[in-house]
Amino acid sequence: MAKEFTDDENDIHVWAATEDEVVEDAREQLDAAGVEMDESAIRERIAIIPSPRRIKSGTDGVFDERRRRGGERTAQDVVESGMDVGLGTGSTTAWAVAEIGRLLREGELEDVRGVATSLQSHELAKETGIPLVNLDEVTELDVTIDGADQYSEEEPTVIKGGGGAHAREKIIDAMADRLVIATDEEKATDPLDYPVPVEVMPDAREVVAEDLRDVGGDPELRMAERKDGPLFTANGNLVIDCDFGGLDDTSGTARDIEQIPGVLEHGIFLDMVDDVYLGTEDDVETVSF
Amino acid sequence: MAKEFTDDENDIHVWAATEDEVVEDAREQLDAAGVEMDESAIRERIAIIPSPRRIKSGTDGVFDERRRRGGERTAQDVVESGMDVGLGTGSTTAWAVAEIGRLLREGELEDVRGVATSLQSHELAKETGIPLVNLDEVTELDVTIDGADQYSEEEPTVIKGGGGAHAREKIIDAMADRLVIATDEEKATDPLDYPVPVEVMPDAREVVAEDLRDVGGDPELRMAERKDGPLFTANGNLVIDCDFGGLDDTSGTARDIEQIPGVLEHGIFLDMVDDVYLGTEDDVETVSF
Repeated sequence: MAKEFTDDENDIHVWAATEDEVVEDAREQLDAAGVEMDESAIRERIAIIPSPRRIKSGTDGVFDERRRRGGERTAQDVVESGMDVGLGTGSTTAWAVAEIGRLLREGELEDVRGVATSLQSHELAKETGIPLVNLDEVTELDVTIDGADQYSEEEPTVIKGGGGAHAREKIIDAMADRLVIATDEEKATDPLDYPVPVEVMPDAREVVAEDLRDVGGDPELRMAERKDGPLFTANGNLVIDCDFGGLDDTSGTARDIEQIPGVLEHGIFLDMVDDVYLGTEDDVETVSF
Repeated sequence: MAKEFTDDENDIHVWAATEDEVVEDAREQLDAAGVEMDESAIRERIAIIPSPRRIKSGTDGVFDERRRRGGERTAQDVVESGMDVGLGTGSTTAWAVAEIGRLLREGELEDVRGVATSLQSHELAKETGIPLVNLDEVTELDVTIDGADQYSEEEPTVIKGGGGAHAREKIIDAMADRLVIATDEEKATDPLDYPVPVEVMPDAREVVAEDLRDVGGDPELRMAERKDGPLFTANGNLVIDCDFGGLDDTSGTARDIEQIPGVLEHGIFLDMVDDVYLGTEDDVETVSF
């Protein structure tokens, strides 16, 4: 997805889309700092990192040290040799994926296979060298590491779907013996109140919106950016973001939404979470259920 | 969809795909019977009927008198001027759609608009002259007339989806103030035991099949005819037909299926039926809930 050159000793850190660009930028900064380093030494210090361009939180979000630390620690803690691993989507999870690739390249992990929840995690896994298998080749995963739009410290439930990939994410999260949410401490709320992303059949959008109002929600069709009109998912459907206020009964609300004809999937991942890994200011904390 | 010439007096009935073919065939039979009739008189007696080629039950099924009688009676009984009507799919329902068109053409009904559940009912409605509105233009319907693969005389629930259109059918059936199932007496069973058609995301077919086994079903991926490999729905998804044996707890089974990630819709239409119209050997019977 992107490349990064790190020279902690001289406090030089540069990243770019390609290795050649990184070499060029690193060369400039090393020269400016009066540090001698030949090209092969520069290339040796280049790592594959998530591309901020691929992730909606952008450069600041992706390079947030809490997210990077949280994602890397999650990979180190939960992935073992021989595991089939679900590879989630999100700015913290992306660092976990990159770290699994690094551990494989350096021989600290062996025989790990990944199943990607989205095109983004698929591309990052390919580049970082995690062998991929198709979703339909496995029916169980040892662990899935995924992000969340909001998590709870009180119940093993998260809300997901801000990235529009929640139908596939839910399949892969549910397949895992252990679901680990890699996120940061800002996303904790009780009760959960993030507007629930609901994937709907395009022709059913009006009646589904009515039905969502009937069960207490405030639905809003998600519009696209960089194309006119509404956003379409990878499955050719629409997303209605439905604000229910605080979810005092997540199970009941999930059930209400599931019963609506024309609803294909929703973003309440009910009773699925085993652990939450949180990057904090100077450490990584965990919440386990 | 097709055209039919009827001359009951001389017991001549012919049908074909186009009006010109019907005129030609009728001409031959009238000549053979020694009946004089000019072309305009022939054309006056031509009606629009469902095309057996469009409906899987074929010529015998569509021209089964019980189905024709049941469908026509349903239209006559339940559709009133000014109504918005859901137009279902199936060999009995097709006769209801054709009859609504006839009633409109002959001025016995006015201001009726239809919403089609499938391309087949859309095409028949167009040809027979029912003004169509898009599904997303209305959020309520006065009545929907639809078929079923199996109905119950004990509970207001049907199983649908043998035709592969159940996702859209469920939306339109659920929107109606009154759902009338037009079918024949052969399709009654208690408890319901028709294999439940489950629409699934293609990549999730293996894990959904596993999950369906876990809740007591025997899943089988529906294969296509006239193309290699599995059948795809109008939404680009697959259908798993899942045999649960007799459904002693339809509500519980529906809930079990809905909770499986990767399942988009299933064919249990729970507690939705108001009336069942049944063509029998010499009459039309109704079951009301």
